[in-house]
Amino acid sequence: MEIQNILITGRIYQEMAQILLKEKIDKDFRFVSENEVSLDDLLWADAYVGFCPTENFQFGNMKWVHSLGAGVDRFLFNREWKEDVLLTRTVCSFGQKISEYCLSYILRDLQGHDVYAWYQSKRQWKQVVPKSIQEQNIVVYGTGAVGQEVAKNLFSLGVKPIGVSRSGAAKPYFSEVVPVSRAADVMVKADWVINTLPLTKETYKFFDDEFFYRLQNAGFINVGRGATVDDEALLNALEKRYVRLAVLDVFTKEPLSTDSPLWQHPNVIITPHISALTSPEEAVQSFLTTLKHIEENKPIVNKVDVLKGY
Amino acid sequence: MEIQNILITGRIYQEMAQILLKEKIDKDFRFVSENEVSLDDLLWADAYVGFCPTENFQFGNMKWVHSLGAGVDRFLFNREWKEDVLLTRTVCSFGQKISEYCLSYILRDLQGHDVYAWYQSKRQWKQVVPKSIQEQNIVVYGTGAVGQEVAKNLFSLGVKPIGVSRSGAAKPYFSEVVPVSRAADVMVKADWVINTLPLTKETYKFFDDEFFYRLQNAGFINVGRGATVDDEALLNALEKRYVRLAVLDVFTKEPLSTDSPLWQHPNVIITPHISALTSPEEAVQSFLTTLKHIEENKPIVNKVDVLKGY
Repeated sequence: MEIQNILITGRIYQEMAQILLKEKIDKDFRFVSENEVSLDDLLWADAYVGFCPTENFQFGNMKWVHSLGAGVDRFLFNREWKEDVLLTRTVCSFGQKISEYCLSYILRDLQGHDVYAWYQSKRQWKQVVPKSIQEQNIVVYGTGAVGQEVAKNLFSLGVKPIGVSRSGAAKPYFSEVVPVSRAADVMVKADWVINTLPLTKETYKFFDDEFFYRLQNAGFINVGRGATVDDEALLNALEKRYVRLAVLDVFTKEPLSTDSPLWQHPNVIITPHISALTSPEEAVQSFLTTLKHIEENKPIVNKVDVLKGY
Repeated sequence: MEIQNILITGRIYQEMAQILLKEKIDKDFRFVSENEVSLDDLLWADAYVGFCPTENFQFGNMKWVHSLGAGVDRFLFNREWKEDVLLTRTVCSFGQKISEYCLSYILRDLQGHDVYAWYQSKRQWKQVVPKSIQEQNIVVYGTGAVGQEVAKNLFSLGVKPIGVSRSGAAKPYFSEVVPVSRAADVMVKADWVINTLPLTKETYKFFDDEFFYRLQNAGFINVGRGATVDDEALLNALEKRYVRLAVLDVFTKEPLSTDSPLWQHPNVIITPHISALTSPEEAVQSFLTTLKHIEENKPIVNKVDVLKGY
């Protein structure tokens, strides 16, 4: 595949420009903010690099679209894809970043940070026994690159994570992987559920009343995609204590609307989609590696299966 | 060594009694709260098991003293020890517990929990890039059982921990161990210092003005012993920003006095000596293993070097 004209947009287009222009790559680049991408830019481009399609997006003569995020739902979910266009996604340290995010909130809870902050404010010396993460049953939905990295980090601390995936195929670092059809068995004893699922037709509002009903006072962490969760069902589950604590980094609509009841819920922690920010350096590296593999006809490991949606 | 009369005291003496009485061990036990240990109890005992000596403590005919904590300074520091009495200490999952405590506060900081809690309270969607623990320079003072376990857990998450010890002898999981005499070299680039040192004559007020002066806006975590830190020097270091954040689980005098300025310091986190609580189950297990090794003349790995003080 011949790629000459490359359009780069999205939150970090300027930082990417700085890095790429130093590299003196023999391609024609346009670096444009999302709001300013013109129809001419789109029709000019052989390749489009960004976090999502612009509002005026059209495929034109594009041969390749490269997602700066790990998730590609904004390119595929409820949209038409042009069959012969290659879609790739950024692969970098997302898994490690997301692992640290999850660990930070699990350990914060097990170590009683909030309880002790309260006692400190009262100058009270009162022991509450912390719980070890090794005794926690942690279930990870999704056993792809991110889910596996989360499992690896948990495993290295002595946890025996359980995976849930479509197929139930065994994966490294998981003590067990069960197919979705058998997930009910592992849900009842889950202390924590971590969602790393992509957004596809199958996972849209996957975490619904029926799902939450199986939990018993568990922690629920969403680092996958917001629209995989039915927010009404989650709020209901929080009220009924199926879910004890929800840690949410992703939302159906982002930024989360200021009138969402999630913001002020005492058992909800909200972060603004920061568990796996793409750094400009890593974005450039992943983009260049993919470009090289395309031009040299090498296998492209970060190619998206457009039909599956991830 | 013949042990028949065993006196068990300390915070968990009742729970230990429950477990030990089920085991039907062919020894005479007395289970007594610290306040109620009598002179008769002390003179009766071949073995004394507790977190510290009682106020009326005397050795009498004791042959063995077993500390329910990992630290033995309350038995040795500024006290006379009777030469032929064996001193052992509890060895169990202290290292793992302390590791999780340290990790929880490091990750909390790197992930900006407090910043995001503030934004959440204001319904503000604002990204602040989290830092990865893998990029942190973490220096661990003390490379004994606890220090090594801390290093192991850090290493498993991709950190390259640096150790500081008296000898500087290499230890597993540390990328490097330097002797105290060369610690200044590694201090300047430390993002975090974790203290796991025992309290001895050498370590009393070890962390003083001269030590803190070398830090540049570092986090300081004390899970060793309170009296290894000069509190005046620490407060000064916090003011001068040599120390950005202090996480303190141990104090010279415990419980920490209500009039201590540490309680309300905005950059100090106080927990009431909970980073490595001895559970009754683990206490019994360590005690019984030690007893067995004593009676069978096997090597006692948890024997304390009374002259060294740990």
